[in-house]
Amino acid sequence: MKWDAWGDPDLAKPLSEDIRALLEQALGVTPADHPAPTAQEVVLRPSALSREDLDALAGIVGAAHVSSHDADRLPRAGGKSTPDLLRRRSREVQDAPDAVVLPGGEDEITAVLALCAERRIAVVPFGGGTSVVGGVDPVRGGFTAVISLDLRRFDRLESLDEVSGEAVLGAGLTGPQAEALLAARGYELGHYPQSFRYATVGGFAATRSSGQNSAGHGRFDDMVRGLRVLTPSGAIDLGRAPASAAGPDLRQLFLGSEGTLGVITAVRLRVHPTPAVKIHEAWSFPDFATGAAALREVEQQGTGPTVIRISDETETAINLAMTDRIGGAQVTGGCLAVTVFEGTPEQAAARHLRTREVLLAAGGTSLGEEAAKAWEHGRFNAPYLRDSLLTAGALCETLETATSWAGLAALKAAVTSALEDALRESGSSALVMCHISHVYPTGASLYFTVVAAQQDDPLEQWGRAKRAAGDAILAHGGTITHHHAVGTDHLPWMTREIGDLGVRILRAVKDAVDPAGILNPGKLIP
Amino acid sequence: MKWDAWGDPDLAKPLSEDIRALLEQALGVTPADHPAPTAQEVVLRPSALSREDLDALAGIVGAAHVSSHDADRLPRAGGKSTPDLLRRRSREVQDAPDAVVLPGGEDEITAVLALCAERRIAVVPFGGGTSVVGGVDPVRGGFTAVISLDLRRFDRLESLDEVSGEAVLGAGLTGPQAEALLAARGYELGHYPQSFRYATVGGFAATRSSGQNSAGHGRFDDMVRGLRVLTPSGAIDLGRAPASAAGPDLRQLFLGSEGTLGVITAVRLRVHPTPAVKIHEAWSFPDFATGAAALREVEQQGTGPTVIRISDETETAINLAMTDRIGGAQVTGGCLAVTVFEGTPEQAAARHLRTREVLLAAGGTSLGEEAAKAWEHGRFNAPYLRDSLLTAGALCETLETATSWAGLAALKAAVTSALEDALRESGSSALVMCHISHVYPTGASLYFTVVAAQQDDPLEQWGRAKRAAGDAILAHGGTITHHHAVGTDHLPWMTREIGDLGVRILRAVKDAVDPAGILNPGKLIP
Repeated sequence: MKWDAWGDPDLAKPLSEDIRALLEQALGVTPADHPAPTAQEVVLRPSALSREDLDALAGIVGAAHVSSHDADRLPRAGGKSTPDLLRRRSREVQDAPDAVVLPGGEDEITAVLALCAERRIAVVPFGGGTSVVGGVDPVRGGFTAVISLDLRRFDRLESLDEVSGEAVLGAGLTGPQAEALLAARGYELGHYPQSFRYATVGGFAATRSSGQNSAGHGRFDDMVRGLRVLTPSGAIDLGRAPASAAGPDLRQLFLGSEGTLGVITAVRLRVHPTPAVKIHEAWSFPDFATGAAALREVEQQGTGPTVIRISDETETAINLAMTDRIGGAQVTGGCLAVTVFEGTPEQAAARHLRTREVLLAAGGTSLGEEAAKAWEHGRFNAPYLRDSLLTAGALCETLETATSWAGLAALKAAVTSALEDALRESGSSALVMCHISHVYPTGASLYFTVVAAQQDDPLEQWGRAKRAAGDAILAHGGTITHHHAVGTDHLPWMTREIGDLGVRILRAVKDAVDPAGILNPGKLIP
Repeated sequence: MKWDAWGDPDLAKPLSEDIRALLEQALGVTPADHPAPTAQEVVLRPSALSREDLDALAGIVGAAHVSSHDADRLPRAGGKSTPDLLRRRSREVQDAPDAVVLPGGEDEITAVLALCAERRIAVVPFGGGTSVVGGVDPVRGGFTAVISLDLRRFDRLESLDEVSGEAVLGAGLTGPQAEALLAARGYELGHYPQSFRYATVGGFAATRSSGQNSAGHGRFDDMVRGLRVLTPSGAIDLGRAPASAAGPDLRQLFLGSEGTLGVITAVRLRVHPTPAVKIHEAWSFPDFATGAAALREVEQQGTGPTVIRISDETETAINLAMTDRIGGAQVTGGCLAVTVFEGTPEQAAARHLRTREVLLAAGGTSLGEEAAKAWEHGRFNAPYLRDSLLTAGALCETLETATSWAGLAALKAAVTSALEDALRESGSSALVMCHISHVYPTGASLYFTVVAAQQDDPLEQWGRAKRAAGDAILAHGGTITHHHAVGTDHLPWMTREIGDLGVRILRAVKDAVDPAGILNPGKLIP
């Protein structure tokens, strides 16, 4: 993963002529190269750890697995939100963890936590570093230093129970690593968030990630059957059975805990046989309201698509769902929906048939499979495009929420207006696009993509827009985040999200498991 | 609800000749009437509340809604486990709550909690009183007195969102009341535990109840979208969206909290249109292993039955699944399975067709619809039969657990042996029967029914058997309870269930929401 942009340098996406024209016409952005510092030019704040601290850490994990070199610190300096990437472009002194520690076993983690509690060093558990909410920022809180605890050595498929359809996966496995290990045995996890190529099993659990196949396989938290977590107060193994009435479900405290309550080392997950076939079909709906109602009908009837999503009119008009065709000839008027079906040939065919009956009855027009395949082909690539947009002088960011079906239209309108108004006040017209990509019987997510012209201080510019959007979300019954987690960026809304008493409960749990408060300070818990 | 037995006196089930013969042949029980005291003969411990305490409570909820009369205290003296019913037969002094308080609004509950915290009075939230784990026992902990806080006045359908398929139901609504209110609007909740006729919405949530239609509609906790809870530290509203990544899911702390963390006053639930049709089909499998594998296949493929369950060979041999035919001519050899399908005519037919294909391929033989309808007809009546068995001198009790599909057979064998051995040591041969009634992609529940001859001290006799079964469950990877909750009876296993750290977390949450510790002391949290 690049330190100042998304992913693999070989997959960078220069702006197409279509996109350049779009930027100029719609937003007045004349693409120009905004040069950024190279890694060598970046000035990092020196490590605050003493030689003795580093030696003590090396004594636990081995000298080869502790580093305070800038080359190791810089890639763990933050996540991949637009503000993160803008900060990486700064020529001022940048912050970074004071060391990177790569434990090789649970005993080592336990010893590192004890050492850090004793020496008052903050610990940021680190997976793929794909947070877009400041979740891995090197916040020291009141501590003297902060280390990045990189879990990548927890990379085993620990067990696979083929009868029950359960696998225990190491927290440090990336999406592709996990799927490759399972595929070799004929199984699939089926969790494909946009961060799939880099993010890890532990990160998926710690952030309540949701993937593009959520209609078929659920959110990541739905897949979790068990968790192993190491805390400064001891280890905990949760999830004895597929379901239990033995009190509160404590797994649900560590799912979404974002490294503040413990270090997740292994996750027991539901897996299923690798689908034999895949059927794609794209659809057009006359407008978003009609299309959303069609998706609702599909989900409430339970017809079984693996993927179902719909872009609003603006997203459809610029082909945002098909990364390689953005700004090109419009694929359809109205709103583009994508469906994918998986399973055995019989299952996929039956799910497809039942779903298309509902979509046809709800006013959809089939576009055949091609646009759905184009969506699938580019589905992990949007972040590369954002990098090119930022370099060209455009501001591009995403945010998401969820609410009930009944509240969806009002929430969408309110967030769109809030973003447009705030960016207009900053001097930019804005392109605000939206899609539904996760559906539930009682509601759905809304995922917004915003593009505007960068002003003098794009960090401040986006900050105002984000605040306006967050306030609109809370005022209109949405959750501050459906699948991006809280980190630092959503902290201002947490008290409104869960109430004063909810915050006090989280603090009480935090005090019980991490009395020194060293775990990922400044995140999640106000 | 009767104070000393299950339910409605008019529905009492005298033992049939078949059952009497079975008891005599299999267990050596010669049915004889073991007379129990009448309500008038029961001696209750006098109320520990002062006139001033009662006046203060009356000042909050009104004099008509506070009672310290024995006639009101006795029905809230405990739940409906076999030990509860045996205790009710005692002619020694029996314990009961010192008063029954029926609040009519949230302000009143808040004021009652404040008063009780100040005066050090324990509070047992009370719904239908159907706990089979001691969950509503009048435990005073270190307090001077205990009141039963009966939620029956929280009996409204507060709202119904037909678009989203969500209803807000008052915590005090019983199963039939809730379904009647929804049915009048064309909707159904679909939660049918054996306690359905008496248990309440708040109780379902507080105990993580699971109903007989769980294959189709999920457990009660799956249906919950939001909760309102009043605690001594304030109120909390949880569940802003169908799904969220805004940190830990705090709903999952109050689901299963059994009145120890707060008083649930309203629950927002997924509801669905009243099913148009119902299709029944019963099946026979040559043995339990074959049948369990067939149910696993159905659930892992997701073919969509509303009900699917299978009795083991012993249960099948005595027709336990059909309350009215127990001990009569055997309906089938091997193992009896029951399936029910619901929905629109097309949905039900398609689900039925797909499911029966799987069951046929897995070795099942259709028995047609009659035995499945007979199961459905008697499905809430087994507790009446237990009352007659207890009176006749038999010991009859149930217990349940869950584990992964891979671990199911070993767990079943271990629990069966533990029960048989423990009861044999007490001097009784035992009839241990088992069924699967809740299935998940990765595992299933096991529900055991045990019948033996009562010995001199049946409470102690059952206590030994229960301890042996609980130890076997934990030793073989099961959860101590899949849907009966913890109460007092499962407390000895909670530390093994969730670990030392899990217990410390529960205590920390308890201290945050109930600093005085007045809420349902002695339950759930070791």
